Amino acid sequence: MKLRELAERLACRLEGDGEVEIVRVAGIQHARVGDLTFLANPKYEAAMAGTQASAVLLKEDAPAAPCAMLRTPDPYLAFARAVSLFAPAWRPAPGVHTMAVAADARIGEGVSIGAFVAIGEGAVIGDQTVIFPNVTIGAGTRIGTGCVIHSNVALRERVTLGNRVILQNGVVIGSDGYGFVRRGDGTHEKIPQVATVVIEDDVELGANTTVDRPAVGETRIRSGTKIDNLVQIGHGVTVGRNVLMAAQVGIAGSTDIEDDVVFGGQVGVGGHLTIGRGSIAVGQSGVTNSLDAGQMVAGYPAIDSREWRKASVIFKRLPELKRRIEELEARLAALTSRGTPGDATR
Amino acid sequence: MKLRELAERLACRLEGDGEVEIVRVAGIQHARVGDLTFLANPKYEAAMAGTQASAVLLKEDAPAAPCAMLRTPDPYLAFARAVSLFAPAWRPAPGVHTMAVAADARIGEGVSIGAFVAIGEGAVIGDQTVIFPNVTIGAGTRIGTGCVIHSNVALRERVTLGNRVILQNGVVIGSDGYGFVRRGDGTHEKIPQVATVVIEDDVELGANTTVDRPAVGETRIRSGTKIDNLVQIGHGVTVGRNVLMAAQVGIAGSTDIEDDVVFGGQVGVGGHLTIGRGSIAVGQSGVTNSLDAGQMVAGYPAIDSREWRKASVIFKRLPELKRRIEELEARLAALTSRGTPGDATR
Amino acid sequence: MKLRELAERLACRLEGDGEVEIVRVAGIQHARVGDLTFLANPKYEAAMAGTQASAVLLKEDAPAAPCAMLRTPDPYLAFARAVSLFAPAWRPAPGVHTMAVAADARIGEGVSIGAFVAIGEGAVIGDQTVIFPNVTIGAGTRIGTGCVIHSNVALRERVTLGNRVILQNGVVIGSDGYGFVRRGDGTHEKIPQVATVVIEDDVELGANTTVDRPAVGETRIRSGTKIDNLVQIGHGVTVGRNVLMAAQVGIAGSTDIEDDVVFGGQVGVGGHLTIGRGSIAVGQSGVTNSLDAGQMVAGYPAIDSREWRKASVIFKRLPELKRRIEELEARLAALTSRGTPGDATR
Repeated sequence: MKLRELAERLACRLEGDGEVEIVRVAGIQHARVGDLTFLANPKYEAAMAGTQASAVLLKEDAPAAPCAMLRTPDPYLAFARAVSLFAPAWRPAPGVHTMAVAADARIGEGVSIGAFVAIGEGAVIGDQTVIFPNVTIGAGTRIGTGCVIHSNVALRERVTLGNRVILQNGVVIGSDGYGFVRRGDGTHEKIPQVATVVIEDDVELGANTTVDRPAVGETRIRSGTKIDNLVQIGHGVTVGRNVLMAAQVGIAGSTDIEDDVVFGGQVGVGGHLTIGRGSIAVGQSGVTNSLDAGQMVAGYPAIDSREWRKASVIFKRLPELKRRIEELEARLAALTSRGTPGDATR
Repeated sequence: MKLRELAERLACRLEGDGEVEIVRVAGIQHARVGDLTFLANPKYEAAMAGTQASAVLLKEDAPAAPCAMLRTPDPYLAFARAVSLFAPAWRPAPGVHTMAVAADARIGEGVSIGAFVAIGEGAVIGDQTVIFPNVTIGAGTRIGTGCVIHSNVALRERVTLGNRVILQNGVVIGSDGYGFVRRGDGTHEKIPQVATVVIEDDVELGANTTVDRPAVGETRIRSGTKIDNLVQIGHGVTVGRNVLMAAQVGIAGSTDIEDDVVFGGQVGVGGHLTIGRGSIAVGQSGVTNSLDAGQMVAGYPAIDSREWRKASVIFKRLPELKRRIEELEARLAALTSRGTPGDATR
Repeated sequence: MKLRELAERLACRLEGDGEVEIVRVAGIQHARVGDLTFLANPKYEAAMAGTQASAVLLKEDAPAAPCAMLRTPDPYLAFARAVSLFAPAWRPAPGVHTMAVAADARIGEGVSIGAFVAIGEGAVIGDQTVIFPNVTIGAGTRIGTGCVIHSNVALRERVTLGNRVILQNGVVIGSDGYGFVRRGDGTHEKIPQVATVVIEDDVELGANTTVDRPAVGETRIRSGTKIDNLVQIGHGVTVGRNVLMAAQVGIAGSTDIEDDVVFGGQVGVGGHLTIGRGSIAVGQSGVTNSLDAGQMVAGYPAIDSREWRKASVIFKRLPELKRRIEELEARLAALTSRGTPGDATR
């Protein structure tokens, strides 16, 4: 689509070459030639300066970009609508479908498919993979060789699984990320979540764990990572190699978790952070800032775990500390009133 | 059923008109003519004074109600049994059922129904709604127009969904609320959870999120609310319009969440609270008290978020503060033992 | 298998009688004659001294065991491989399976089985049990009488359910526990989770709750226990009778929860602990140590709930306490510089 047409459809003011051809939408750090991106948060202004995008959505008062610009009062909302325009318009045909395995799905050698498994159009199942009953595999999803997909798993459309991936029962991969833009009237507009999820080789995901797909870019879990039950991996998150996450961990969107990280149970990690290689967060920590490689943290907000442990020991003695402060105040008052009656600090 | 008969069946002492006809059970604040309600918690005595109920279950020593009374040592247990008496005695017929869509289900125009979707007796599916594979829709459940029900969702019996509702994969709506009464021997009696859940227009629920049904009344999520993955909405909760809840939030039973509230990830909210319009709880907060409109809270127990932030900064310095207190004590002791040898406060 | 052969297959140094017949692998506290066990953590040395096992995997420098020994640099890794050797080599046959109920499954009287329910080889369903649509029941799983299994539940192979068990929608029982051994290169080897889960009579599990199976021994939930939605029960956990757990609680592996315990919502409990009879942890607590019977705890790390409440009240006054300490310091400095100029403590 020509940028000029896009400007019209999104009701933006065009600045620059309207003849540029736009073929995709992308985040500012991953955008390439042919992409439309957006600047909503000033902290990405530096990234914008170096962007490869062909055009950028931005506010009227934002600094100029090194490419064509679409000026608009709400770049994020315009972006949400641009995603819709470029999203694959995919919707199953009306009617009651009874075919378990789509005619054009490619099923490898030695594959076992349980009862009531639905496999969508164009899906690919690698050799020796086992799929237990009541699993749903979306259109265009690709599963490698030697995988084990336990019962009642839901894989959405266009998800990619490597080899020897194990999904415990009830796992969901490729559900829509939690992406909405607030409209002027207080309602929220859904940003279509149409990008993909990639799960690399030898990953295992625990029962009822969920992995969301983003609007643009991808959510990726790298090889050898093992994740326990009921974990939430937000949209656009990258999880490195050989990472361990215990049950009920939650990772907010767009966070980058490097290799060999370890999270205890119920840890929460904020969005848009970088969790350095080999760092550790003990159970129930709330990680609100990026972590350096090798850091070990605890508490909420998470701090160095030794510091946290020392502070925690004193926490329960707070009533005693308060009493000691009161005693000090009383003694000092007694002392000054008696010993130094003219004390100006009283 | 005549109240006299009910008194006999529940082994309660009747006080008042035994000829009153009871047709339903209800919570004390929502009870109307024809309803039996109960008073187990003294804090609802004021509500009882103004109740429209035809009869109330209460303790022998409770104040008199403005209606007929059933006196009993354990009103909550008697209430649990009354719920059973009035609950629809619903149970599928024995045998292996193979019919996907019940003969009397009403399916709208342009509806798409995936493979292995089970639709119960009397269910209604609105026009243009899309239902992906392996979804279960209970008897009597009504789904509006233009909804998208992703794969492996479980909707229980008699649930109501508005229009344009989106349910991500693995969502459960209408599961039994967590309601039990402790018996004298330490075991627990299940309070039948037979009331309903209503999800209004334009609501979106994330993957593997669960919404429970209550014993009486309803659980309701109002229009425009967007809820992320793995969230728990307890029985009898009301969630207002345009509310946002990030992943892994948990709301205990009977809490009332007003419009425009925002919860960060992993927030926990206690039962029977009112969370005022537009209030915000940051991630991992534990909300143990009702919030005023517009309040912003953090921590556990959740307090004003600015207060909490200031206190959190000092938390990690507790070992230092303790040392400074000890130094003050030592210096003051040195001072008083030397400067004021006769100090009576030592 | 002869121990001599096992030593060879696991590349361990044999110490003792190589002719001993090994038929099973087991944890050190539950091992009996014919079992191979392991010692990886020195805190189990005392347990080893009294073990009934026929052989034990242990480090070169570990104290001698009262049975045959297999010395190896990494006993836990060798144990993981031993589990594989003795695990039932179970894998469904290749091909697309369309049979809903296995020919040799035994279905009791008056049982109701919904559409798209898959029941594996050798499964047993007791009289009057109701199974809703899209449930998967693994091979060899046994369900008692009068149970209610709501839609989209996944029961894995060889799981046992007692009588009158209620499983809300989306429950997973028997998923693989989170058990991995770190290899020298930083990748993780899966310890096959091939033991069983037992759910006793009158237990109820909430929607999307997960219960893992262990490598050896069992995971067990005793009679009368009621568990809410989205709860994680780790592998090898024992939950006692009449226990209550609110939503989103997580219990790490091998913990023993005694009768009548109560956990509020979002509580996290560490692994290998004993939670004494009737103890209570309030919502969001993080239990990092074993609890005595009747203890009531709160906070993270969880401490006595009254102590915690008192300390919490003061937490928000930390900025004020810090200011008061600073004032004391200033006043004392003023006092000593003026009143006692030669004070050696300055």
